[in-house]
Amino acid sequence: MSRKIDVGKRILSANERYALKNSQLLGEQKKLCLNMISSPGSGKTTILARTIRDVKDKIKIGVIEGDIQTDLDAERIKATEAPVVQIETGGSCHLSAAQVSGALEKLPVGDLDLIFIENVGNLVCPSAFELGESGKIVVLSATEGDDKPVKYPAIFAKSKVLLINKIDLLEAGAQVDFDVERVRADARKLNKGIEIFPISAQTGEGMNRWYDWLAESTKNLQGD
Amino acid sequence: MSRKIDVGKRILSANERYALKNSQLLGEQKKLCLNMISSPGSGKTTILARTIRDVKDKIKIGVIEGDIQTDLDAERIKATEAPVVQIETGGSCHLSAAQVSGALEKLPVGDLDLIFIENVGNLVCPSAFELGESGKIVVLSATEGDDKPVKYPAIFAKSKVLLINKIDLLEAGAQVDFDVERVRADARKLNKGIEIFPISAQTGEGMNRWYDWLAESTKNLQGD
Repeated sequence: MSRKIDVGKRILSANERYALKNSQLLGEQKKLCLNMISSPGSGKTTILARTIRDVKDKIKIGVIEGDIQTDLDAERIKATEAPVVQIETGGSCHLSAAQVSGALEKLPVGDLDLIFIENVGNLVCPSAFELGESGKIVVLSATEGDDKPVKYPAIFAKSKVLLINKIDLLEAGAQVDFDVERVRADARKLNKGIEIFPISAQTGEGMNRWYDWLAESTKNLQGD
Repeated sequence: MSRKIDVGKRILSANERYALKNSQLLGEQKKLCLNMISSPGSGKTTILARTIRDVKDKIKIGVIEGDIQTDLDAERIKATEAPVVQIETGGSCHLSAAQVSGALEKLPVGDLDLIFIENVGNLVCPSAFELGESGKIVVLSATEGDDKPVKYPAIFAKSKVLLINKIDLLEAGAQVDFDVERVRADARKLNKGIEIFPISAQTGEGMNRWYDWLAESTKNLQGD
């Protein structure tokens, strides 16, 4: 008796298996799921809280909050009345697909149009771990410097959308040295199709184009 | 014939072995070595370039520049005429002690008083890898938010100095919501002895206290 072994089939890592499971669940239910990645302090939570409030009549949003420690961000999302599940990674520098799988079980996925995953604040490690999301959103704030796409290319190459946040600080007469056009050009070199929205989650400037993109992407998926 | 095995002796990891080697080399030569850690874009390179220029008559500084990709930061340091060695980690989210050991061989260590290691921009991973340094310096910029010591405690607990950078933006009439006293209190809860210097590497505000600390620390070590 002989056994055939399919050598062409690559063995999936545990993370890839969970990512596939998440992606299948989200695909079957036609839910858009966006994995938001940035350095600490670029404004992810502020963007999410404002987005949830501003689009609540059109798009039902739930949030998975990843943090190394504390539930401060989850509390800020709770204040918007959106459903939120907190994951504390306890030191780990990125969310895993298994953690997201557990969180998806706790969210009322059927009632939602869109699920945001707010990853741990880190521009490097989260870009290497697929969570089964529909796409990645990278946030860069204007005070972080315009050299970041060149210095941290992986996440810019992989994202569907780049949000350039805190653009109100470019106009406040403050000494912020940041060339939006340089960022745009460098990000496009890495990723021809990336959508780029300069915004201020603080003042609301530029947010409408981002909301339009979310509405369109949600509709496209549900209309499949 | 029997062999004795010392079971009390913990086996060192490769990183710990190199860290010990670096620490011995630096200790024998009485050189201060500071490992600078922060998120991308908090201003590490700007702080270093200004510090090197401002103290060059008193303290001879060399720099080890860690980046995932590009030598943009090393070029900025070269412009100050300080000796600099670039390490490109090629995707890795932190410097290793072995990389630093190689870089120390290329620096004219004997001619220097102080060696700065500018780690990869990442508030999480570099805090877990000892490089053999004399101490860690954490940089937090005012635009990153005042909740960072609570959310990313490890690096604040381990650092000798916290530089709160970009404080000029707090006074520019911009909408930067950052409470220096909250950061001070939260950092001290994690680390009673941490030195805290609010600075602006852009305008020079507050930099003199930081320079005094560097001069004092260098002198103390050399006077041993």
